[in-house]
Amino acid sequence: MKNKLALEGTRVLDLTHVLSGPYCTMLLADMGAEVIKIEKHGEYDRKAIPLIKGESYFYMVLNRNKKSITLNLKHEKGVEILKQLTAKSDVVVENFRPGVMEKLGIGYDILKKVNPKIIFASISGYGQNSRYSNRAAYDLTAQALSGVMAMTGDPNGPPMRCGFDVGDIIPAIYTAFSIVTAICARMNTGVGQMIDVSMIDSLILCQPDQFTTTKVTGKAPERAECGGHIVAFPYDAFQTRDDWIAIGCWGDPMFARLADLIKMPELVEDPKFITEEGRCANRSELRKFIEKWVSNLTAAEAISLLLDNGIGGAEVYNYKQVLESAQVKDRDLVKRMVHPVAGEVDVPGIAPKFSETPGDVRKPSPLLGEHNKEIYTGLLQYSKEQVKKFEKEGVI
Amino acid sequence: MKNKLALEGTRVLDLTHVLSGPYCTMLLADMGAEVIKIEKHGEYDRKAIPLIKGESYFYMVLNRNKKSITLNLKHEKGVEILKQLTAKSDVVVENFRPGVMEKLGIGYDILKKVNPKIIFASISGYGQNSRYSNRAAYDLTAQALSGVMAMTGDPNGPPMRCGFDVGDIIPAIYTAFSIVTAICARMNTGVGQMIDVSMIDSLILCQPDQFTTTKVTGKAPERAECGGHIVAFPYDAFQTRDDWIAIGCWGDPMFARLADLIKMPELVEDPKFITEEGRCANRSELRKFIEKWVSNLTAAEAISLLLDNGIGGAEVYNYKQVLESAQVKDRDLVKRMVHPVAGEVDVPGIAPKFSETPGDVRKPSPLLGEHNKEIYTGLLQYSKEQVKKFEKEGVI
Repeated sequence: MKNKLALEGTRVLDLTHVLSGPYCTMLLADMGAEVIKIEKHGEYDRKAIPLIKGESYFYMVLNRNKKSITLNLKHEKGVEILKQLTAKSDVVVENFRPGVMEKLGIGYDILKKVNPKIIFASISGYGQNSRYSNRAAYDLTAQALSGVMAMTGDPNGPPMRCGFDVGDIIPAIYTAFSIVTAICARMNTGVGQMIDVSMIDSLILCQPDQFTTTKVTGKAPERAECGGHIVAFPYDAFQTRDDWIAIGCWGDPMFARLADLIKMPELVEDPKFITEEGRCANRSELRKFIEKWVSNLTAAEAISLLLDNGIGGAEVYNYKQVLESAQVKDRDLVKRMVHPVAGEVDVPGIAPKFSETPGDVRKPSPLLGEHNKEIYTGLLQYSKEQVKKFEKEGVI
Repeated sequence: MKNKLALEGTRVLDLTHVLSGPYCTMLLADMGAEVIKIEKHGEYDRKAIPLIKGESYFYMVLNRNKKSITLNLKHEKGVEILKQLTAKSDVVVENFRPGVMEKLGIGYDILKKVNPKIIFASISGYGQNSRYSNRAAYDLTAQALSGVMAMTGDPNGPPMRCGFDVGDIIPAIYTAFSIVTAICARMNTGVGQMIDVSMIDSLILCQPDQFTTTKVTGKAPERAECGGHIVAFPYDAFQTRDDWIAIGCWGDPMFARLADLIKMPELVEDPKFITEEGRCANRSELRKFIEKWVSNLTAAEAISLLLDNGIGGAEVYNYKQVLESAQVKDRDLVKRMVHPVAGEVDVPGIAPKFSETPGDVRKPSPLLGEHNKEIYTGLLQYSKEQVKKFEKEGVI
């Protein structure tokens, strides 16, 4: 069983570019789906910096395990070929602005006539049917419009974005979940379907704390001091004698242990700090006590004391420290692949660990059109002469 | 077909609590899986604030569409019943600390003997086999150890957490994806498997920008001024005459349009600003020009000008503004459910829109043990007398 891949036998046509779409199809490819990336001149991120021997590292990371074919979707024959591929595939994924696929003549309504079992997934900023669907959207605008930026940063400073691209990554994983769910559904219903994922919606709906607080109070929560949590304190970063650490305390019993640890057991009897609400309301005052305690310790000492006393504590690692951490080693989080141009490159590994059908980095990202021969003469059974003609005519 | 649910016929035993586990099983339940939540006295979040008529709003949001049974897993008979349920189920999900399921006598090795087709998914802070597996982990510690906090906030202030629980939400969606993927794999292999998802790993592996930059330069990227992006500027918040807005500019052509818009076309010939790297390195200087332009406009005026000129722009909404936004209305993002105690409550809706088997909020969150009768006398075929005996003996 170990040699089988989870999504073996699932063929995905990948019309995506940049981050959200490629990350989604990467998850499918890592799990064994045959992902055929369709480009004409190479998608935007083939040139994204940093480069290794002229190859975009970012592109290489996001497109490992995939195949690449060139195909001109603005050419009549290109559209016909895409339909032929659709007839032989399970999934189409795209992240153009809404309307682009229709304009190209390959919208869901057309492709489902070609293959009623096709699962057609679209990732877009606002979704297919919002009054704003035509607006361009980026991770940043998704973070802004979903309330994420309003909650990130310090109340005395500007609203900030989360330090990574949650506006792309969360909808990407959501879409991968949705595609596989639709594959399960197809076993019951016999038909495919359209899946419409919006970057903004995805972020709006994954903030249950903000949702419930706003609905109950009628007011939006405001950013907490130092970017802390709105319903718990301490739950942020503190400066030790050497490095920053995170101290996470959740609930009254844990706070009692923290008060003991910092040798201020009287805090748990102080009405200001007795409840979680009180600790949040009086966090500036409480912060000073914790800062004082932690400032006399090294990060390692403080974390050790916190953990020994059943309180959340952790190093605030920068990404270099992350890559050097024991966690990355123990969990095999970095994989090496050999790229035909860039050579040996390390890429992020596989997050979910499967016992029977583990995902893996099996192949490097493809060169542009690397799989033209395999797909056009193999899968679609065109003659070599016909393929040469396609090349000359700018179809592929 | 429209009346079918995507995951209809999939039975999930839900041994999870708080956020990451319940959010994962919520995604499965929304899509039609029969999720049976197993509690003894009610999980931690049944008491999480805010409350509506004594019911935790947070719990209600995360546990809609699920069933609840009481079951004492520290009772020998309780363990036996869990095995009986496992024999009739497809999936077990848990987010205890590693080792707890084994200690209870219901680890994967035992349950797979009961049902070789069972898919057993664990969400934990560090994963099952890290040297740190026994440490408690929270969203905060996951953000700290993955490099997320180091990249969030301003370089002149403390590292901060993202303003929502990415350390729980991302592994939750990852696990839902993994479970459905394992269901597909089971069709190929005939057997179930163990899925091991770590909160920290999940965050480490979804930062391709940080990964590639660190690997190429040998140094971790540092937080950019105002929490901006490391490889693009402007890509953060600006204060207009009234509200904050986000301005997102990516790539040279877009920057040329922005320079024109702010009536400083000479910027694109300035060596300091000609490249993306230059704009990032000289962002403080460039920021002043944009700030000056935006300070004379209202948010609405600035966004309209940005969008008309093909530049990313968006309101920085707080969550109240989010809930009042046209996007939420157009995309039907808030659903109303009727809870037997709390009454009518609004909950976040369904992110991915499926054309044929749409997810929905069909049922309110369950009262503790609400489905004992259905499951114990129905599914497991115990007599009413036997169920009463279980109650008396503290088994259920």
